[in-house]
Amino acid sequence: MTSPRTNRRFLLAARPQGMPKPDDFQLDTQPAPEPADGQVLLRTRFLSLDPYMRGMMDEAGPGYAPGVKLGQTMVGGTVSEVVASRNARFQVGQLVLSSAGWQEYALSDGSDLTPLGEMSRPSLALGGLGMPGFTAYVGLLDIGEPKPGETVVVAAATGAVGSVVGQLAKLKGARAIGIAGGAEKCRHAVEVLGFDECLDHRAPDLKARLAAACPDGIDVYFENVGGEVLDAVLPLLNLHARVPVCGFIAHYNEERGGAATDKRTQLLATVLGKRVRLQGFIILDHYADRFAAFRRDMTQWIDEGRIVLVEDVVERLEQAPDAFIGLLQGRNFGKLVVRVSE
Amino acid sequence: MTSPRTNRRFLLAARPQGMPKPDDFQLDTQPAPEPADGQVLLRTRFLSLDPYMRGMMDEAGPGYAPGVKLGQTMVGGTVSEVVASRNARFQVGQLVLSSAGWQEYALSDGSDLTPLGEMSRPSLALGGLGMPGFTAYVGLLDIGEPKPGETVVVAAATGAVGSVVGQLAKLKGARAIGIAGGAEKCRHAVEVLGFDECLDHRAPDLKARLAAACPDGIDVYFENVGGEVLDAVLPLLNLHARVPVCGFIAHYNEERGGAATDKRTQLLATVLGKRVRLQGFIILDHYADRFAAFRRDMTQWIDEGRIVLVEDVVERLEQAPDAFIGLLQGRNFGKLVVRVSE
Repeated sequence: MTSPRTNRRFLLAARPQGMPKPDDFQLDTQPAPEPADGQVLLRTRFLSLDPYMRGMMDEAGPGYAPGVKLGQTMVGGTVSEVVASRNARFQVGQLVLSSAGWQEYALSDGSDLTPLGEMSRPSLALGGLGMPGFTAYVGLLDIGEPKPGETVVVAAATGAVGSVVGQLAKLKGARAIGIAGGAEKCRHAVEVLGFDECLDHRAPDLKARLAAACPDGIDVYFENVGGEVLDAVLPLLNLHARVPVCGFIAHYNEERGGAATDKRTQLLATVLGKRVRLQGFIILDHYADRFAAFRRDMTQWIDEGRIVLVEDVVERLEQAPDAFIGLLQGRNFGKLVVRVSE
Repeated sequence: MTSPRTNRRFLLAARPQGMPKPDDFQLDTQPAPEPADGQVLLRTRFLSLDPYMRGMMDEAGPGYAPGVKLGQTMVGGTVSEVVASRNARFQVGQLVLSSAGWQEYALSDGSDLTPLGEMSRPSLALGGLGMPGFTAYVGLLDIGEPKPGETVVVAAATGAVGSVVGQLAKLKGARAIGIAGGAEKCRHAVEVLGFDECLDHRAPDLKARLAAACPDGIDVYFENVGGEVLDAVLPLLNLHARVPVCGFIAHYNEERGGAATDKRTQLLATVLGKRVRLQGFIILDHYADRFAAFRRDMTQWIDEGRIVLVEDVVERLEQAPDAFIGLLQGRNFGKLVVRVSE
């Protein structure tokens, strides 16, 4: 038997309107629970605080998970120590990665625990060696695919994700341009993290400064903030740029779906929540690679009667302007062509 | 020597404000040119009319090519006949695919010509067997990647591109839901083109009708219109949906970059013009596949000193709400964790 322990925890007391306030959280104290057969009791060593938690405070959640219910313990990743075990897989004293949330003690049946093994800095399992670092790794390397000499831009450049994005970009031979709030963070990004440049988004003329910092345009924009950073990035994107969409810190405190949330943010929220791939293409790029296959397939499908091609044929060149205006108004029916001569 | 021919052509007379008017085009008449050595004289048989031409009437062009200059011949794809040849590669009487534009005659050095060979319907080289059909093929099959049983949605469903998108979707075993303007087009889409359903976007409650037509959500949305169709599609997108972005007919007549162009449209115009890949991701999806590689790589890079991990450690659970609010305000410096116990 362990002696009675006190568990302090933070409950979600109110759903924030905009930026959370201290009163939205309620500190609650009760006896720590006792593990049942098969369970372990965990004591929290480190609690991770991450921007996605703002979305969890909304009823609808961040788009990929339901929100925390009012009166429930705030969710969060933790590095925890097994302090009592009735599960043969876990020994007292062992460190594990857990999702124990904002509290000092938690029960687990072990299914959600990852043993941490020997780590000189166990808290890194919540950061660079955990979810934020993994986010940077998958988002930048698997989706962003930076190539040597390309330019990578990331905001929140000294944050848990952005700091790794920038360093991975450098490691892959790309230029890394960071954006951060304040001169001190920008200096840190360059001097400690190795960014080529870092721009203070609080200073004026971000657009012009970003353009100056990216003379060859932007090949990968790791999107984690939205808002005015995205405004500045868009005109600089190069052909075939990649934009892994990881989050929108700038919008997390806006009223969801309200007038304050513009359509672009709604689109990006869907792209994120549903892991959508949105990809622009201009058919001119694809003739060399794919036109022969297309003509072969399409001709066969037409011959087999599996594809029907309907044309809307307008007679005489003089009719072209009117027919074109009709096309824009939806008047045509099938592919519109002008028969100019027989 | 050929006898003098008259070439009638349409020049861009004025840049349209919104929807083009007949006066934006000027019919011009002059003698047809004579081919120089190496050139051919082409007579236009069919001129293609396509929505992208609206963008070509703006000074900035459609985003991937400069616009037509005032006083110049309107651009456009044509099926043309060689009527005089001083180029050994082309014989009089031969049909070629050309970009002769909105005119009856044009010169070419042959470099931009594709011989058409035998075709029972040469005009199809401008439609289902040409650029619009190719657009549907690459956009739907290479980017949209529809799988059997998935749901594909496309607007302008009876148009040159949409009609092929729907039929290719069916051919690949997917459900094809079209959107078109008017009951007649919708009937045509279902009865002639084989769409499973087609919705009239002029009738009320498009959102509700689209939701009813897509009970399993939308897996591929072939984006060619924007506007309210996109509004209706977004809430229905499934996890890992694909959105090939081909154009935005609904916005082509808006003032470029003006107040009428919302930020979503500006974003999509960049995605299209720059062929951007925008992809949302939630890191939870990737643990099974990529976490082991990440931990191995990252640990090595840290050991080698190539990645530096900076933490912002806050002491005691009581500080969590304040630290979290600070995170959303950008107060933290590096990965934010709370040390809950030693």
